[in-house]
Amino acid sequence: MIRETAELERLLPPGRVITDPGRRSSFAHDEAAGAPYGVPLAVVQPRETAEVAAVVAYCAGRGLPVVARGAGTGLSGGANAIEDCVVVSFAEMDRILRIDPDERLAVVQPGVVNDDLRAACAKHDLWYPPDPASAPWSTIGGNVATNAGGVCCVKYGVTRDYVLGLEAVTGRGEVVRLGRQTAKGTAGYELAGLLVGSEGTLGLVTEVTLRLRGARAPEHTVVGYFDDLPTAGRAVANVVASGVVPSALELVDRYCLRAVDEWKHMGLTAGGDVLLLARCDAPGAAGEEEADTVRACFAAAGASWSARSTDSTEAETLFAARRLVYPALERIGLVLSEDVCVPRTLVPRMLAHIERIAREQGVHIASLAHAGDGNLHPMLVVPRGDGRAMARGRAAFELLVDQAIALGGTVTGEHGVGLLKMRGLGKELSPAVLDLHRGIKKVLDPAGILNPGKVFTP
Amino acid sequence: MIRETAELERLLPPGRVITDPGRRSSFAHDEAAGAPYGVPLAVVQPRETAEVAAVVAYCAGRGLPVVARGAGTGLSGGANAIEDCVVVSFAEMDRILRIDPDERLAVVQPGVVNDDLRAACAKHDLWYPPDPASAPWSTIGGNVATNAGGVCCVKYGVTRDYVLGLEAVTGRGEVVRLGRQTAKGTAGYELAGLLVGSEGTLGLVTEVTLRLRGARAPEHTVVGYFDDLPTAGRAVANVVASGVVPSALELVDRYCLRAVDEWKHMGLTAGGDVLLLARCDAPGAAGEEEADTVRACFAAAGASWSARSTDSTEAETLFAARRLVYPALERIGLVLSEDVCVPRTLVPRMLAHIERIAREQGVHIASLAHAGDGNLHPMLVVPRGDGRAMARGRAAFELLVDQAIALGGTVTGEHGVGLLKMRGLGKELSPAVLDLHRGIKKVLDPAGILNPGKVFTP
Repeated sequence: MIRETAELERLLPPGRVITDPGRRSSFAHDEAAGAPYGVPLAVVQPRETAEVAAVVAYCAGRGLPVVARGAGTGLSGGANAIEDCVVVSFAEMDRILRIDPDERLAVVQPGVVNDDLRAACAKHDLWYPPDPASAPWSTIGGNVATNAGGVCCVKYGVTRDYVLGLEAVTGRGEVVRLGRQTAKGTAGYELAGLLVGSEGTLGLVTEVTLRLRGARAPEHTVVGYFDDLPTAGRAVANVVASGVVPSALELVDRYCLRAVDEWKHMGLTAGGDVLLLARCDAPGAAGEEEADTVRACFAAAGASWSARSTDSTEAETLFAARRLVYPALERIGLVLSEDVCVPRTLVPRMLAHIERIAREQGVHIASLAHAGDGNLHPMLVVPRGDGRAMARGRAAFELLVDQAIALGGTVTGEHGVGLLKMRGLGKELSPAVLDLHRGIKKVLDPAGILNPGKVFTP
Repeated sequence: MIRETAELERLLPPGRVITDPGRRSSFAHDEAAGAPYGVPLAVVQPRETAEVAAVVAYCAGRGLPVVARGAGTGLSGGANAIEDCVVVSFAEMDRILRIDPDERLAVVQPGVVNDDLRAACAKHDLWYPPDPASAPWSTIGGNVATNAGGVCCVKYGVTRDYVLGLEAVTGRGEVVRLGRQTAKGTAGYELAGLLVGSEGTLGLVTEVTLRLRGARAPEHTVVGYFDDLPTAGRAVANVVASGVVPSALELVDRYCLRAVDEWKHMGLTAGGDVLLLARCDAPGAAGEEEADTVRACFAAAGASWSARSTDSTEAETLFAARRLVYPALERIGLVLSEDVCVPRTLVPRMLAHIERIAREQGVHIASLAHAGDGNLHPMLVVPRGDGRAMARGRAAFELLVDQAIALGGTVTGEHGVGLLKMRGLGKELSPAVLDLHRGIKKVLDPAGILNPGKVFTP
């Protein structure tokens, strides 16, 4: 092992290789609770594509596993180190290379933080939509690896929808350019899209060309409180049927509201048991009409209270409360974060199953949902240090996955498979499709060194 | 060969196999001028996925090439028969299986005609955007195989953006389900997107799940005449800089206008040398504002005449004139239709190169362009039966491809590679990327029977 680190140091300019045990172990895992991890042999922090290629080629020759890492904000263990692997951290490849207002595209290195890119785009009246909750910290490279989503994807799509092209280092150590720099194109296989969401198993992304949108019109916020989940579910169904596509449609259940209240005393639970938060951003008067329609949908479903927020502070406070849910729950215990997605009309049914599974398994489950696109985040809160509760939590986690599949859904809407959803993926995909995965991985990574043992079994 | 057709007939229900030489040869090629083709050994017209799988499995065992075919409206030879191949025509698999307004999706068989699907969606106040010029005849299966575009994709994207999931038969004869039925999802590799645009080389698509949009607001049309291409190019640049994303932005050059005038006497050339046609579809007053902005952009660039058409008949007439260009040119000679795409700001420069190449090669080239997304359709008109003119046309065709690549563009924006762009693709993609294509094809089609010799060399 000492020999390998010495060789890596020789391959790269000084200062790129971290071998100190304490620092190495800070790169051992992402933010997924309950996923296994090892300690990397070394962490390398390349600054150039050629350095990434040199590291991968070296590792391919030695059969050393390579784990790519952005900010480590992942929630499925996809960036967890494998014992004695080489972690490639993209923290130092964090430059925005180009923002082109006329072509409406940005060319960035993988280590650029999502919010930093969005801020840079805003200066040109441009907008990069994908907005995962991790946007203040997570990197574009990590977003690309997991095909990250967020709140506005109900209207604007996910990371893959914005990746025009990319540069990557395959498991052969070769640098390839995939996709394009034009608005349109269909030359050969869609290999850029194939790498998006491949979670570091097919290649290490070293540069991304992203499609941008023009800055959008200001959003109008609509909030509604409901006495129970079925009533809130009807409100969501009404919105879908109205034809309005909101730019956000979020559901927060009573367990989430309570957790935030207990911490911040915001009085959220006084309003009702379930909170729906919607935003509309059609330009001009059309946006106001959309917001009125959404409010009417909430009222018609039987909202106990609903309002179109004209006060952006009030609206921001409620959206901020939603962002406080995760830290509020973490005060109570360890949070196992789910990410199933079901056909959107089945959100109420899935929420009922979540309540049933919580009851039957004796697990505390609080639910956030991107209700507009069927992507639910039930969060299983397990008291820290309670092994039996953890076992029940894990069992409930898998039952949720099975239930989502039974409803025609998928095991992961936006977090990726990583380690936590491997069993579920094996149920969701047929053996023939899993074989295609293995075959394609072998083409891009013949030595099997790129994030081995993640997503699917070799 | 008699034995193979007899075996195919035994495999399938009666009436599925066409062996009559006259009928077979009507399936020999698509609408690409100047692409080679052979005569198929047999044409099969399956009605069920299982029949497709049986045919492919049989052909894989015998090493018989299989060419999938929709309506045969392709423009790059992708559906051209290989001598003694089996053509699988999807004409009989033409059912719309489901339109789900709540989930905003449609499930269709590959033989459904694009316009028929759009009409069926309209009954539910839904909209399937991709609108290739062939929409009245071309099928969803063919649209998926070529990742077809159209006029509205400048704002709404291309076929791949609407494919959520699909069922396909791989070259192994296995039936696989790829993608999903949910709005969001990132479970495993994006294999549905990989099959879109793969031109029948990776699998035969037997069912498609398509994302739909709600019916859109009425469009406003803006037309502008310009004295020359640079002036029109400035108008397009102004529109891009204004932040308005039109739902159509089409350029028609003087050669196109003249050809239509000579046929239909519409007086198009009286207005000026270059026609720009734009549409805007933001809802309500915002749509009118967009149209006003576009008109102001045209005027500021120096349009000789511009108008916001409030008369939908007038607007339709001008868009109809655009659709007459291709048949008008076909009256003059054989049309070699190009499909290069360049960064949109380089459209004026590419148009200048087109004029230069036409002059230098002595070839008549008329240009249509989806100016808003940089996708140009220079059409090389060659007198029928003139071998030397045809040779000059072919030479000009390749020079256009090379020029698009030199500008950072791509050899095909929306027609696909087929046979006509194989040389160009070999220049556009690096040897390493072409090797990935070959490796991936081998995974899905180990016997190499699916549309062999198309897109890239084995």
